[in-house]
Amino acid sequence: MDKKILDKLIEAAKQGMKNSYSPITKFPVGAALLTDSGKIFVGCNVESTIAGLGTCAERCVIDNAVANGEYCYNAIAIISKLEEPVKPCGVCLQYIGEFAQVADHDIEIIMAGIKGKVNKSSVYKMLPDTYGPRIAGLDLSKYECKKK
Amino acid sequence: MDKKILDKLIEAAKQGMKNSYSPITKFPVGAALLTDSGKIFVGCNVESTIAGLGTCAERCVIDNAVANGEYCYNAIAIISKLEEPVKPCGVCLQYIGEFAQVADHDIEIIMAGIKGKVNKSSVYKMLPDTYGPRIAGLDLSKYECKKK
Amino acid sequence: MDKKILDKLIEAAKQGMKNSYSPITKFPVGAALLTDSGKIFVGCNVESTIAGLGTCAERCVIDNAVANGEYCYNAIAIISKLEEPVKPCGVCLQYIGEFAQVADHDIEIIMAGIKGKVNKSSVYKMLPDTYGPRIAGLDLSKYECKKK
Amino acid sequence: MDKKILDKLIEAAKQGMKNSYSPITKFPVGAALLTDSGKIFVGCNVESTIAGLGTCAERCVIDNAVANGEYCYNAIAIISKLEEPVKPCGVCLQYIGEFAQVADHDIEIIMAGIKGKVNKSSVYKMLPDTYGPRIAGLDLSKYECKKK
Repeated sequence: MDKKILDKLIEAAKQGMKNSYSPITKFPVGAALLTDSGKIFVGCNVESTIAGLGTCAERCVIDNAVANGEYCYNAIAIISKLEEPVKPCGVCLQYIGEFAQVADHDIEIIMAGIKGKVNKSSVYKMLPDTYGPRIAGLDLSKYECKKK
Repeated sequence: MDKKILDKLIEAAKQGMKNSYSPITKFPVGAALLTDSGKIFVGCNVESTIAGLGTCAERCVIDNAVANGEYCYNAIAIISKLEEPVKPCGVCLQYIGEFAQVADHDIEIIMAGIKGKVNKSSVYKMLPDTYGPRIAGLDLSKYECKKK
Repeated sequence: MDKKILDKLIEAAKQGMKNSYSPITKFPVGAALLTDSGKIFVGCNVESTIAGLGTCAERCVIDNAVANGEYCYNAIAIISKLEEPVKPCGVCLQYIGEFAQVADHDIEIIMAGIKGKVNKSSVYKMLPDTYGPRIAGLDLSKYECKKK
Repeated sequence: MDKKILDKLIEAAKQGMKNSYSPITKFPVGAALLTDSGKIFVGCNVESTIAGLGTCAERCVIDNAVANGEYCYNAIAIISKLEEPVKPCGVCLQYIGEFAQVADHDIEIIMAGIKGKVNKSSVYKMLPDTYGPRIAGLDLSKYECKKK
C-alpha cells in the first residue's frame, strides 16, 4: 500500500476513535476501511450494557460500508490509545473474513499504535480457511465489487 | 414529526435497503435515523454465515451514526419489501433503548410498508423500562447531544 | 404455576447465579427454565471482554436446554442480587420469543428479587408479535415438544 | 489426550449435535467440553431468525459449563455431519480464548469428521495472543479452576 494512502487510512481510524461510545471499558478503538473502489469509511467501538450486544470498531466500519453499498475491501486499519498496536479479536477477524469471501481476495489488516508503530498482516494470515458465505455455497453474485 | 421529514426519512430507509447484505434470508431491510441535530443516517441488515454475528438494519444505522459522533436520536424508520410494516426485533429495541438513555428522551419508531402504510410507536412504548447505561449508573457526560 | 414449582424454579435460578462469570460488571444474574416436559435447567450470565460476545442468563439457560434436546418451555425465572426483580432485556425477550414460536405457546416470565419479591409476566406480553421462525415460515416440525 | 477420553469426548459432541436447533441452515453442529476437573459437557448450535442472535456449538457448551460452575477447560471437541472436520469460527475461537485466559493455559481443539477423521490444534495456535480478560487486567480470582 502507498505510504500516502496508509497515512490517510490510519488518520481516518484515529478520527473514528474520537467518536467511540465506550462508557463501560473507557477504551476507545477506531477503525477505517479502504474499499476496492478507493473510498474510506470510519468506525469505532460501540458498547452496550447488555452482554452480547455492541460492536467492535472493525465490525462497525464494515456495517457502515455495507450500508453505503460497498462490499469489497482492500484494507482495514485499527487504532487505540495504546502505543502497542491492537489486534482485531476473533469475532472481527471472522467478520472481515466473511467479506474477504465476498470480494474473493485477502484483506490487509493494518494495526497502528498511537505513537506511530504499525504492524501489518491480513485476514487470510490471521484466520486462515475460515468458514464463510463462499464455503457455505451462498449466491453472492448480487454483491458486486465496485472498482476504482 | 413534520410530513416532509417523515417522507425523507422513509425514503432514506428505502435507499439503505437497496444495499442490504442478506445472502442467507434474502430479506433486505433498510433503516434511517434522524439525529437530534437534524442529520439523517442510513443502514441495512448485514447477515453472516455465523450464528450470533451480523446485524439488523436498526443496529447498523445506529453504529453508523455513532461512528460519526452522533449519540442522540429523534426517530428511526424501518422498511422492508413487505406491504405490512415490519417491527424492530427485541435486540434492536434494546439497542435503541440504550441510546434513548444516552439522550435521556424517547425515540420515535416509524415502521413503513413498501406501498406507503406507516405505523408509529416509540422505544419507551415497545420496550418500557429496559435496562441500560443510565440505570447501570454509567457516566454518560462524554456523549453530548448535538443540537440543531 | 404451582407454588412449590415456583419456589423450586426461583431456587434453581439462585443456584445458577452463583456460577455467573461476570468479571466486567460484577453483576451476577441467574436464570432457570421449566420445560414443558417438567425438567428444570439453570443458567447464568457469561460476560466477555469483547463487545458483542457473552450472554445473559436467560439466553444461557435456553442454550443449555436446547443442548439437552428440550425446545419447549413453560416458564423462565430470573434473579439478581437486587431486592427489586430484574426484567429480561430486549435481546433475551427476542430469544425467549423465538422459542415461544417453536412451542407455539406463551412462556411465563418470573422476575424475582433476592428478598422474595416476585413479578410475573410473559413473553407475549413483554414483546408482543415479535418476528421469529414461525413468522419466517421455517419448518419447525423437527423440534418436537417433549411432554410430561 | 488418552484415546479413551478422546473417543468419549467425540461421542459426546455427536450426542450434542443430535439436539441442534438449526432451522435456518439445517447444518447441525455438536460440541463437547472436557473440564480440568474431568467433567464432560455437551453443546450444539442454536440458530435464530435474527441477525446477531444465536450461538455456535462451541459457545453453547462453554455457557453450559459456566452455568455449572466450571470455568477451566482442557479440551473442546467439535463435529458436524461432514466427513471433513469443521474448524471453530473466529467468534468461537475468541470465546475459547477468553476462557484459556481464565484457566491461564492453552485449550486443545479437537475437530472431528463424521467418519472418524480427527484434526487437532489448540486455541493458542489458532488465535494467538488474543485480547481477553487477563490482558484487560480483570480480576479473575473468583473463577477458580476445579481440579480432578
